[in-house]
Amino acid sequence: MKAVCLLSGGPDSAVAAAIARNEGHEIYCLSFDYGQRGRRELESAKKIARFLGAREHMIVDMSSLKRIYGRGVTALTDEGMRMPERFERSVIVPFRNGIMLAVAAGYASAIGADAIFYGAQGDDARFYPDCRNEFATAMEAAIRAGTGEDIKVRNPLVRMKKSDVIRLGVKLGLPLEDTWSCYLGGRLHCGRCESCRNRKRAFREAGVRDPTKYSG
Amino acid sequence: MKAVCLLSGGPDSAVAAAIARNEGHEIYCLSFDYGQRGRRELESAKKIARFLGAREHMIVDMSSLKRIYGRGVTALTDEGMRMPERFERSVIVPFRNGIMLAVAAGYASAIGADAIFYGAQGDDARFYPDCRNEFATAMEAAIRAGTGEDIKVRNPLVRMKKSDVIRLGVKLGLPLEDTWSCYLGGRLHCGRCESCRNRKRAFREAGVRDPTKYSG
Repeated sequence: MKAVCLLSGGPDSAVAAAIARNEGHEIYCLSFDYGQRGRRELESAKKIARFLGAREHMIVDMSSLKRIYGRGVTALTDEGMRMPERFERSVIVPFRNGIMLAVAAGYASAIGADAIFYGAQGDDARFYPDCRNEFATAMEAAIRAGTGEDIKVRNPLVRMKKSDVIRLGVKLGLPLEDTWSCYLGGRLHCGRCESCRNRKRAFREAGVRDPTKYSG
Repeated sequence: MKAVCLLSGGPDSAVAAAIARNEGHEIYCLSFDYGQRGRRELESAKKIARFLGAREHMIVDMSSLKRIYGRGVTALTDEGMRMPERFERSVIVPFRNGIMLAVAAGYASAIGADAIFYGAQGDDARFYPDCRNEFATAMEAAIRAGTGEDIKVRNPLVRMKKSDVIRLGVKLGLPLEDTWSCYLGGRLHCGRCESCRNRKRAFREAGVRDPTKYSG
């Protein structure tokens, strides 16, 4: 049983991939350079893939997506935009998970995998439509219609809060210190962007010591 | 009204984009380098976009998809595979239209377009699941769930045969001689691959003089 696991380098996708592995899948990890300012996360993705014993880890260069999104759309790729400290429309990268799942479907079909795992969790589902269960179900239907194959889209964290995900990551023995959440690409996590704040809060709520070094 | 038009460089997508324009859309064309052997088609896509007065023409470099598909999956990217003369599984690029429509959805959301046009036609729908109407409908639903926006996936040729598309292209005054169908990347159309054969047959059935120079 093969599974394609989307791996961003953050804790959520690491836990989702660990679940895939623990279910007995041979895992094929997939990460994307889409021109994100925080592409430092790809180094973390490599460490996690290695830790999990992934059979392959594909890093797909889609950095020209940055041109598609252009200016003034998303602070995650536009270096001219202020990075907000709370959720704002500008932290949404339009249909990012849709694009990644579509590439994952092509990969899954090519290698004969029967599932794609991604790390959407409940806290994000509140703000990001492409982290919701309805989206995963709709995407699975589109993949079935477009390939004629029965490839499942699995989002095992969709009913958990991020703090639950952190607790589960610790329980599974994942090196969470090797994960990356910051939307900016510094040497250390900035500690101020929405994603760093969510990370800090999740460790605190989970009652787990936060191993992350923040610069702010 | 803005529309994103997938443009491969072939006659079908050119006609679909012309329909979008004639409906009054401001058109934003989108083409892909996915490592295809026939990437010569991108030069044709540029000519068509210019002819149609596209507001923008984005060519997205996704050539690392070739690695995703790997060896022995599709003759369209694997130079080691024989290019078949009739339909075979090896001319399918798994979920290619799904990946392209997903990127188109991100683009449409970024620029505020309300529709995506693509050139799936009835002859291809017989063999390629991602050219069928069920797929377009499912993908539209996934895009709505994943963006929260009402972006239509339009496939205006899905009930036409390729010969009908050629006839319509002539009627609309499109420079069909500038389009490219061959799966191989030669100076001329090879005249032998499945796609060249379909092109030849469509012109013949349409009763239209075929302006294409074939090498075989």
